[in-house]
Amino acid sequence: MRIDVLTILPKLLEGPFNDSILKRAQEKGLAEIHIHNIRDYSTHKQKSVDDYQYGGGAGMVMTIQPIADCIEKLKSERQYDEIIYMTPDGELLNQHICNQLSLKGNLIILCGHYKGVDQRIRDMFITREISIGSYVLSGGELGAAVLVDAVVRLLPGVLSDETSALTDSFQDNLLAPPVYTRPEDYKGHKVPDILMSGHTEKIEQWRQEQSLKRTQERRPDLLD
Amino acid sequence: MRIDVLTILPKLLEGPFNDSILKRAQEKGLAEIHIHNIRDYSTHKQKSVDDYQYGGGAGMVMTIQPIADCIEKLKSERQYDEIIYMTPDGELLNQHICNQLSLKGNLIILCGHYKGVDQRIRDMFITREISIGSYVLSGGELGAAVLVDAVVRLLPGVLSDETSALTDSFQDNLLAPPVYTRPEDYKGHKVPDILMSGHTEKIEQWRQEQSLKRTQERRPDLLD
Repeated sequence: MRIDVLTILPKLLEGPFNDSILKRAQEKGLAEIHIHNIRDYSTHKQKSVDDYQYGGGAGMVMTIQPIADCIEKLKSERQYDEIIYMTPDGELLNQHICNQLSLKGNLIILCGHYKGVDQRIRDMFITREISIGSYVLSGGELGAAVLVDAVVRLLPGVLSDETSALTDSFQDNLLAPPVYTRPEDYKGHKVPDILMSGHTEKIEQWRQEQSLKRTQERRPDLLD
Repeated sequence: MRIDVLTILPKLLEGPFNDSILKRAQEKGLAEIHIHNIRDYSTHKQKSVDDYQYGGGAGMVMTIQPIADCIEKLKSERQYDEIIYMTPDGELLNQHICNQLSLKGNLIILCGHYKGVDQRIRDMFITREISIGSYVLSGGELGAAVLVDAVVRLLPGVLSDETSALTDSFQDNLLAPPVYTRPEDYKGHKVPDILMSGHTEKIEQWRQEQSLKRTQERRPDLLD
Protein backbone atom coordinates (compact mmCIF):
# COMPACT_ATOMS: atom_id res chain seq x y z
CA MET A 1 0.00 0.00 0.00
CA ARG A 2 1.19 3.51 -0.87
CA ILE A 3 -0.12 6.62 0.88
CA ASP A 4 0.72 10.17 -0.21
CA VAL A 5 -0.08 12.84 2.38
CA LEU A 6 -0.36 16.51 1.31
CA THR A 7 0.22 19.01 4.09
CA ILE A 8 1.54 22.47 4.89
CA LEU A 9 3.01 21.14 8.18
CA PRO A 10 5.15 18.14 7.24
CA LYS A 11 7.09 18.29 10.52
CA LEU A 12 3.94 17.65 12.51
CA LEU A 13 3.66 14.23 10.86
CA GLU A 14 7.24 13.17 11.42
CA GLY A 15 6.69 11.83 14.95
CA PRO A 16 3.56 9.85 14.20
CA PHE A 17 4.97 8.38 10.98
CA ASN A 18 8.47 7.56 12.20
CA ASP A 19 7.56 5.71 15.35
CA SER A 20 5.36 2.87 16.49
CA ILE A 21 3.77 0.47 14.03
CA LEU A 22 3.96 2.86 11.09
CA LYS A 23 7.73 2.69 11.23
CA ARG A 24 7.64 -1.08 11.36
CA ALA A 25 5.16 -1.27 8.47
CA GLN A 26 7.44 0.84 6.32
CA GLU A 27 10.59 -1.07 7.28
CA LYS A 28 8.89 -4.35 6.41
CA GLY A 29 7.89 -2.91 3.03
CA LEU A 30 4.18 -3.32 3.80
CA ALA A 31 3.37 0.38 3.48
CA GLU A 32 5.05 3.35 1.82
CA ILE A 33 4.13 6.73 3.23
CA HIS A 34 5.20 9.87 1.38
CA ILE A 35 4.72 13.33 2.79
CA HIS A 36 4.45 16.27 0.38
CA ASN A 37 4.81 19.88 1.47
CA ILE A 38 2.06 21.77 -0.38
CA ARG A 39 4.11 24.95 -0.09
CA ASP A 40 6.78 23.47 -2.38
CA TYR A 41 4.21 23.48 -5.18
CA SER A 42 3.17 27.12 -4.84
CA THR A 43 4.01 29.25 -7.87
CA HIS A 44 3.37 32.38 -5.79
CA LYS A 45 6.53 34.39 -5.23
CA GLN A 46 6.22 34.25 -1.43
CA LYS A 47 5.22 30.55 -1.66
CA SER A 48 1.84 31.53 -0.25
CA VAL A 49 -0.75 28.75 0.12
CA ASP A 50 -3.77 30.65 1.46
CA ASP A 51 -5.82 33.79 0.90
CA TYR A 52 -8.86 35.66 2.28
CA GLN A 53 -12.24 34.13 1.65
CA TYR A 54 -14.68 35.52 -0.88
CA GLY A 55 -17.74 37.01 0.75
CA GLY A 56 -15.80 38.10 3.86
CA GLY A 57 -15.47 36.50 7.26
CA ALA A 58 -12.75 35.32 9.66
CA GLY A 59 -10.18 32.70 8.68
CA MET A 60 -8.09 31.99 5.62
CA VAL A 61 -8.80 29.53 2.80
CA MET A 62 -6.22 27.28 1.14
CA THR A 63 -5.74 28.20 -2.52
CA ILE A 64 -6.29 25.87 -5.44
CA GLN A 65 -3.05 26.10 -7.40
CA PRO A 66 -0.46 24.39 -5.15
CA ILE A 67 -2.81 21.57 -4.17
CA ALA A 68 -4.04 21.04 -7.72
CA ASP A 69 -0.49 20.92 -9.08
CA CYS A 70 0.63 18.43 -6.43
CA ILE A 71 -2.35 16.12 -6.99
CA GLU A 72 -1.98 16.32 -10.77
CA LYS A 73 1.70 15.44 -10.58
CA LEU A 74 0.96 12.39 -8.39
CA LYS A 75 -1.91 11.29 -10.63
CA SER A 76 0.36 11.48 -13.67
CA GLU A 77 2.72 9.03 -11.96
CA ARG A 78 0.24 6.32 -10.87
CA GLN A 79 -3.42 5.47 -10.42
CA TYR A 80 -5.02 6.32 -7.09
CA ASP A 81 -7.94 4.42 -5.58
CA GLU A 82 -9.10 7.33 -3.46
CA ILE A 83 -8.19 10.99 -3.02
CA ILE A 84 -9.30 11.71 0.52
CA TYR A 85 -9.82 15.11 2.12
CA MET A 86 -9.68 15.22 5.93
CA THR A 87 -12.40 17.64 7.04
CA PRO A 88 -14.79 17.99 9.98
CA ASP A 89 -17.73 17.96 7.55
CA GLY A 90 -16.79 14.62 5.96
CA GLU A 91 -18.30 11.19 6.64
CA LEU A 92 -17.51 9.98 10.12
CA LEU A 93 -14.62 7.50 10.17
CA ASN A 94 -15.41 4.10 11.65
CA GLN A 95 -13.79 0.68 11.75
CA HIS A 96 -15.71 -0.47 8.68
CA ILE A 97 -14.23 2.35 6.56
CA CYS A 98 -10.76 1.52 7.93
CA ASN A 99 -11.20 -2.13 6.95
CA GLN A 100 -12.35 -1.04 3.46
CA LEU A 101 -9.43 1.33 2.92
CA SER A 102 -6.89 -1.26 4.11
CA LEU A 103 -7.73 -3.25 0.97
CA LYS A 104 -6.81 -0.39 -1.39
CA GLY A 105 -3.52 0.09 -3.26
CA ASN A 106 -2.74 3.82 -3.56
CA LEU A 107 -4.29 6.64 -1.54
CA ILE A 108 -3.82 10.41 -1.47
CA ILE A 109 -4.74 12.17 1.77
CA LEU A 110 -5.13 15.96 1.72
CA CYS A 111 -4.87 17.80 5.04
CA GLY A 112 -6.94 20.96 5.33
CA HIS A 113 -5.97 23.99 7.39
CA TYR A 114 -7.48 27.30 8.46
CA LYS A 115 -11.10 27.44 7.22
CA GLY A 116 -10.36 24.60 4.78
CA VAL A 117 -9.51 24.30 1.10
CA ASP A 118 -11.22 26.17 -1.73
CA GLN A 119 -14.42 24.26 -2.50
CA ARG A 120 -13.33 23.81 -6.12
CA ILE A 121 -10.48 21.51 -5.03
CA ARG A 122 -13.12 19.30 -3.44
CA ASP A 123 -15.34 19.43 -6.53
CA MET A 124 -12.51 18.70 -8.96
CA PHE A 125 -10.32 16.12 -7.26
CA ILE A 126 -11.62 14.66 -4.02
CA THR A 127 -13.30 11.23 -4.14
CA ARG A 128 -13.94 10.86 -0.42
CA GLU A 129 -14.21 13.27 2.52
CA ILE A 130 -13.53 11.88 5.98
CA SER A 131 -13.92 13.29 9.49
CA ILE A 132 -12.31 11.47 12.42
CA GLY A 133 -14.90 12.85 14.87
CA SER A 134 -17.40 15.59 15.77
CA TYR A 135 -14.82 18.12 16.91
CA VAL A 136 -12.57 20.66 15.26
CA LEU A 137 -8.78 20.36 15.10
CA SER A 138 -6.30 23.03 14.10
CA GLY A 139 -5.57 21.11 10.90
CA GLY A 140 -6.08 17.89 9.01
CA GLU A 141 -2.65 16.49 9.94
CA LEU A 142 -3.75 14.71 13.11
CA GLY A 143 -6.77 13.40 11.23
CA ALA A 144 -4.48 12.05 8.52
CA ALA A 145 -2.18 10.50 11.14
CA VAL A 146 -5.18 8.81 12.78
CA LEU A 147 -6.50 7.50 9.46
CA VAL A 148 -3.10 6.17 8.35
CA ASP A 149 -2.52 4.46 11.70
CA ALA A 150 -5.99 2.91 11.82
CA VAL A 151 -5.64 1.58 8.25
CA VAL A 152 -1.98 0.49 8.20
CA ARG A 153 -2.24 -1.53 11.41
CA LEU A 154 -4.80 -3.73 9.63
CA LEU A 155 -2.40 -4.74 6.84
CA PRO A 156 -1.41 -8.39 7.31
CA GLY A 157 2.00 -8.63 8.96
CA VAL A 158 2.03 -5.18 10.55
CA LEU A 159 0.89 -6.21 14.01
CA SER A 160 3.22 -8.73 15.60
CA ASP A 161 0.34 -10.99 16.59
CA GLU A 162 -2.15 -11.19 13.76
CA THR A 163 -4.98 -12.42 15.89
CA SER A 164 -4.62 -9.34 18.04
CA ALA A 165 -6.54 -6.93 15.78
CA LEU A 166 -9.48 -9.30 15.54
CA THR A 167 -10.22 -9.07 19.25
CA ASP A 168 -10.09 -5.26 19.29
CA SER A 169 -13.04 -3.07 20.09
CA PHE A 170 -15.45 -2.47 17.16
CA GLN A 171 -14.42 -5.44 15.00
CA ASP A 172 -17.55 -7.25 16.19
CA ASN A 173 -19.47 -4.06 17.10
CA LEU A 174 -18.66 -4.66 20.76
CA LEU A 175 -16.24 -2.87 23.04
CA ALA A 176 -13.39 -4.96 24.40
CA PRO A 177 -13.75 -6.55 27.87
CA PRO A 178 -11.59 -5.49 30.86
CA VAL A 179 -8.05 -6.87 30.88
CA TYR A 180 -5.74 -7.73 33.80
CA THR A 181 -2.11 -8.69 34.18
CA ARG A 182 0.30 -9.37 37.05
CA PRO A 183 0.35 -8.92 39.99
CA GLU A 184 -2.71 -10.88 41.06
CA ASP A 185 -3.07 -8.57 44.06
CA TYR A 186 -2.06 -4.90 43.82
CA LYS A 187 -2.43 -3.18 47.19
CA GLY A 188 -5.60 -5.13 47.87
CA HIS A 189 -7.04 -4.74 44.35
CA LYS A 190 -7.46 -8.25 42.99
CA VAL A 191 -7.91 -9.85 39.60
CA PRO A 192 -11.42 -11.36 39.18
CA ASP A 193 -11.42 -15.03 40.23
CA ILE A 194 -12.83 -16.21 36.91
CA LEU A 195 -9.66 -15.12 35.07
CA MET A 196 -7.53 -17.19 37.45
CA SER A 197 -9.75 -20.27 37.13
CA GLY A 198 -8.15 -21.83 34.04
CA HIS A 199 -11.63 -22.60 32.60
CA THR A 200 -11.06 -21.36 29.05
CA GLU A 201 -14.72 -21.69 28.12
CA LYS A 202 -16.03 -19.87 31.18
CA ILE A 203 -13.45 -17.13 30.72
CA GLU A 204 -14.58 -16.66 27.11
CA GLN A 205 -18.19 -16.45 28.28
CA TRP A 206 -17.33 -13.91 30.99
CA ARG A 207 -15.48 -11.77 28.42
CA GLN A 208 -18.45 -11.86 26.07
CA GLU A 209 -20.75 -10.78 28.90
CA GLN A 210 -18.42 -7.99 29.96
CA SER A 211 -18.11 -6.78 26.36
CA LEU A 212 -21.83 -6.67 25.91
CA LYS A 213 -22.39 -4.98 29.28
CA ARG A 214 -19.76 -2.33 28.58
CA THR A 215 -21.18 -1.67 25.11
CA GLN A 216 -24.72 -1.34 26.49
CA GLU A 217 -23.57 1.09 29.16
CA ARG A 218 -21.15 3.21 27.13
CA ARG A 219 -21.97 2.94 23.44
CA PRO A 220 -25.51 1.61 22.99
CA ASP A 221 -25.40 3.18 19.49
CA LEU A 222 -23.05 0.37 18.39
CA LEU A 223 -25.74 -2.24 19.10
CA ASP A 224 -28.40 -0.64 16.85
CA MET B 1 -3.80 25.22 31.59
CA ARG B 2 -1.38 22.37 32.33
CA ILE B 3 -1.59 18.98 30.63
CA ASP B 4 0.53 15.97 31.62
CA VAL B 5 0.60 13.17 29.07
CA LEU B 6 1.72 9.67 30.12
CA THR B 7 2.98 7.50 27.28
CA ILE B 8 5.42 4.73 26.38
CA LEU B 9 6.15 6.47 23.04
CA PRO B 10 7.12 10.06 23.87
CA LYS B 11 8.79 10.56 20.49
CA LEU B 12 5.53 10.02 18.70
CA LEU B 13 4.13 13.12 20.39
CA GLU B 14 7.06 15.40 19.65
CA GLY B 15 5.90 16.42 16.17
CA PRO B 16 2.29 17.15 17.10
CA PHE B 17 3.25 19.04 20.26
CA ASN B 18 6.15 21.06 18.85
CA ASP B 19 4.47 22.42 15.78
CA SER B 20 1.35 24.29 14.79
CA ILE B 21 -0.88 25.98 17.36
CA LEU B 22 0.33 23.85 20.25
CA LYS B 23 3.78 25.34 19.89
CA ARG B 24 2.33 28.85 19.82
CA ALA B 25 0.11 28.18 22.84
CA GLN B 26 3.12 27.03 24.85
CA GLU B 27 5.30 29.92 23.73
CA LYS B 28 2.59 32.39 24.72
CA GLY B 29 2.36 30.73 28.14
CA LEU B 30 -1.28 29.77 27.58
CA ALA B 31 -0.70 26.04 27.92
CA GLU B 32 2.01 23.87 29.44
CA ILE B 33 2.29 20.38 28.06
CA HIS B 34 4.51 17.84 29.81
CA ILE B 35 5.23 14.42 28.40
CA HIS B 36 6.17 11.61 30.79
CA ASN B 37 7.73 8.36 29.65
CA ILE B 38 5.94 5.64 31.62
CA ARG B 39 8.96 3.39 31.18
CA ASP B 40 11.06 5.75 33.35
CA TYR B 41 8.80 4.85 36.29
CA SER B 42 9.12 1.08 35.96
CA THR B 43 10.84 -0.58 38.92
CA HIS B 44 11.23 -3.76 36.85
CA LYS B 45 14.88 -4.49 36.11
CA GLN B 46 14.33 -4.50 32.32
CA LYS B 47 12.09 -1.41 32.64
CA SER B 48 9.21 -3.56 31.42
CA VAL B 49 5.78 -1.88 31.20
CA ASP B 50 3.57 -4.76 30.01
CA ASP B 51 2.82 -8.41 30.67
CA TYR B 52 0.60 -11.26 29.43
CA GLN B 53 -3.07 -11.05 30.24
CA TYR B 54 -4.71 -13.20 32.89
CA GLY B 55 -7.12 -15.70 31.41
CA GLY B 56 -5.08 -16.04 28.20
CA GLY B 57 -5.54 -14.50 24.77
CA ALA B 58 -3.57 -12.43 22.25
CA GLY B 59 -2.07 -9.07 23.11
CA MET B 60 -0.20 -7.61 26.08
CA VAL B 61 -1.58 -5.54 28.96
CA MET B 62 0.11 -2.49 30.51
CA THR B 63 1.08 -3.15 34.13
CA ILE B 64 -0.12 -1.14 37.09
CA GLN B 65 3.11 -0.17 38.87
CA PRO B 66 4.79 2.33 36.51
CA ILE B 67 1.53 4.12 35.67
CA ALA B 68 0.37 4.21 39.30
CA ASP B 69 3.71 5.59 40.46
CA CYS B 70 3.74 8.31 37.80
CA ILE B 71 0.16 9.39 38.52
CA GLU B 72 0.77 9.37 42.28
CA LYS B 73 3.87 11.52 41.89
CA LEU B 74 1.98 14.08 39.78
CA LYS B 75 -0.97 14.11 42.17
CA SER B 76 1.39 14.78 45.09
CA GLU B 77 2.61 17.91 43.27
CA ARG B 78 -0.71 19.53 42.33
CA GLN B 79 -4.45 18.99 42.11
CA TYR B 80 -5.84 17.59 38.86
CA ASP B 81 -9.32 18.30 37.54
CA GLU B 82 -9.48 15.15 35.45
CA ILE B 83 -7.34 12.06 34.92
CA ILE B 84 -8.30 10.95 31.45
CA TYR B 85 -7.66 7.58 29.85
CA MET B 86 -7.69 7.48 26.04
CA THR B 87 -9.41 4.25 25.05
CA PRO B 88 -11.69 3.02 22.23
CA ASP B 89 -14.31 2.04 24.81
CA GLY B 90 -14.53 5.50 26.39
CA GLU B 91 -17.22 8.14 25.83
CA LEU B 92 -17.09 9.53 22.31
CA LEU B 93 -15.28 12.87 22.11
CA ASN B 94 -17.32 15.76 20.72
CA GLN B 95 -17.04 19.53 20.57
CA HIS B 96 -19.07 19.94 23.75
CA ILE B 97 -16.57 17.86 25.75
CA CYS B 98 -13.70 19.86 24.21
CA ASN B 99 -15.37 23.11 25.25
CA GLN B 100 -15.85 21.72 28.79
CA LEU B 101 -12.26 20.55 29.14
CA SER B 102 -10.89 23.88 27.86
CA LEU B 103 -12.22 25.47 31.06
CA LYS B 104 -10.19 23.14 33.33
CA GLY B 105 -6.87 23.89 35.00
CA ASN B 106 -4.80 20.69 35.23
CA LEU B 107 -5.33 17.50 33.28
CA ILE B 108 -3.56 14.14 33.13
CA ILE B 109 -3.95 12.14 29.94
CA LEU B 110 -2.95 8.46 29.97
CA CYS B 111 -2.24 6.80 26.62
CA GLY B 112 -3.05 3.10 26.43
CA HIS B 113 -1.19 0.61 24.29
CA TYR B 114 -1.46 -3.03 23.25
CA LYS B 115 -4.70 -4.44 24.70
CA GLY B 116 -4.90 -1.50 27.11
CA VAL B 117 -4.03 -0.89 30.75
CA ASP B 118 -4.80 -3.22 33.65
CA GLN B 119 -8.43 -2.59 34.60
CA ARG B 120 -7.38 -1.73 38.17
CA ILE B 121 -5.61 1.43 36.93
CA ARG B 122 -8.95 2.54 35.52
CA ASP B 123 -10.79 1.66 38.71
CA MET B 124 -8.30 3.37 41.02
CA PHE B 125 -7.26 6.55 39.22
CA ILE B 126 -9.17 7.41 36.06
CA THR B 127 -11.96 10.00 36.30
CA ARG B 128 -12.90 10.09 32.64
CA GLU B 129 -12.44 7.71 29.70
CA ILE B 130 -12.49 9.21 26.22
CA SER B 131 -12.52 7.73 22.73
CA ILE B 132 -11.83 9.95 19.73
CA GLY B 133 -13.88 7.74 17.40
CA SER B 134 -15.26 4.28 16.62
CA TYR B 135 -12.04 2.82 15.30
CA VAL B 136 -8.94 1.28 16.81
CA LEU B 137 -5.50 2.90 16.77
CA SER B 138 -2.18 1.32 17.61
CA GLY B 139 -2.03 3.40 20.79
CA GLY B 140 -3.56 6.25 22.72
CA GLU B 141 -0.90 8.77 21.63
CA LEU B 142 -2.73 10.00 18.54
CA GLY B 143 -5.91 10.16 20.59
CA ALA B 144 -4.12 12.28 23.19
CA ALA B 145 -2.67 14.53 20.47
CA VAL B 146 -6.16 15.02 19.01
CA LEU B 147 -7.68 15.79 22.40
CA VAL B 148 -4.93 18.26 23.35
CA ASP B 149 -5.16 20.03 20.00
CA ALA B 150 -8.97 20.24 20.08
CA VAL B 151 -8.93 21.63 23.63
CA VAL B 152 -5.92 23.96 23.51
CA ARG B 153 -7.05 25.73 20.33
CA LEU B 154 -10.13 26.87 22.27
CA LEU B 155 -8.10 28.72 24.93
CA PRO B 156 -8.52 32.47 24.46
CA GLY B 157 -5.51 33.91 22.64
CA VAL B 158 -4.34 30.69 21.01
CA LEU B 159 -5.95 31.19 17.62
CA SER B 160 -4.76 34.36 15.95
CA ASP B 161 -8.30 35.44 15.14
CA GLU B 162 -10.56 34.74 18.08
CA THR B 163 -13.76 34.86 16.10
CA SER B 164 -12.41 32.10 13.92
CA ALA B 165 -13.20 29.18 16.25
CA LEU B 166 -16.79 30.34 16.68
CA THR B 167 -17.60 29.83 13.00
CA ASP B 168 -16.11 26.33 12.90
CA SER B 169 -18.13 23.22 12.25
CA PHE B 170 -20.01 21.83 15.31
CA GLN B 171 -20.01 24.99 17.44
CA ASP B 172 -23.64 25.56 16.44
CA ASN B 173 -24.30 21.88 15.60
CA LEU B 174 -23.97 22.68 11.91
CA LEU B 175 -21.20 21.84 9.49
CA ALA B 176 -19.35 24.80 8.00
CA PRO B 177 -20.45 26.13 4.56
CA PRO B 178 -18.22 25.87 1.45
CA VAL B 179 -15.40 28.43 1.24
CA TYR B 180 -13.72 30.03 -1.77
CA THR B 181 -10.70 32.22 -2.37
CA ARG B 182 -8.85 33.70 -5.33
CA PRO B 183 -8.79 33.28 -8.28
CA GLU B 184 -12.41 33.98 -9.19
CA ASP B 185 -12.08 31.66 -12.17
CA TYR B 186 -9.82 28.60 -12.01
CA LYS B 187 -9.72 26.83 -15.38
CA GLY B 188 -13.41 27.54 -15.87
CA HIS B 189 -14.42 26.66 -12.29
CA LYS B 190 -16.00 29.80 -10.86
CA VAL B 191 -16.82 31.18 -7.43
CA PRO B 192 -20.61 31.32 -6.80
CA ASP B 193 -22.00 34.75 -7.83
CA ILE B 194 -23.54 35.38 -4.43
CA LEU B 195 -20.10 35.51 -2.76
CA MET B 196 -18.99 38.20 -5.25
CA SER B 197 -22.15 40.29 -4.76
CA GLY B 198 -21.03 42.32 -1.76
CA HIS B 199 -24.49 41.82 -0.11
CA THR B 200 -23.32 40.90 3.39
CA GLU B 201 -26.78 39.89 4.53
CA LYS B 202 -27.53 37.71 1.53
CA ILE B 203 -24.11 36.08 1.82
CA GLU B 204 -24.81 35.27 5.47
CA GLN B 205 -28.17 33.78 4.50
CA TRP B 206 -26.57 31.69 1.72
CA ARG B 207 -23.95 30.39 4.15
CA GLN B 208 -26.63 29.41 6.68
CA GLU B 209 -28.54 27.55 3.97
CA GLN B 210 -25.41 25.79 2.76
CA SER B 211 -24.49 24.81 6.32
CA LEU B 212 -27.91 23.35 6.95
CA LYS B 213 -28.00 21.54 3.60
CA ARG B 214 -24.56 20.04 4.14
CA THR B 215 -25.47 18.93 7.66
CA GLN B 216 -28.72 17.34 6.46
CA GLU B 217 -26.90 15.46 3.72
CA ARG B 218 -23.80 14.39 5.60
CA ARG B 219 -24.49 14.39 9.33
CA PRO B 220 -28.23 14.35 9.98
CA ASP B 221 -27.38 12.98 13.46
CA LEU B 222 -26.15 16.45 14.45
CA LEU B 223 -29.62 17.92 13.91
CA ASP B 224 -31.40 15.49 16.29
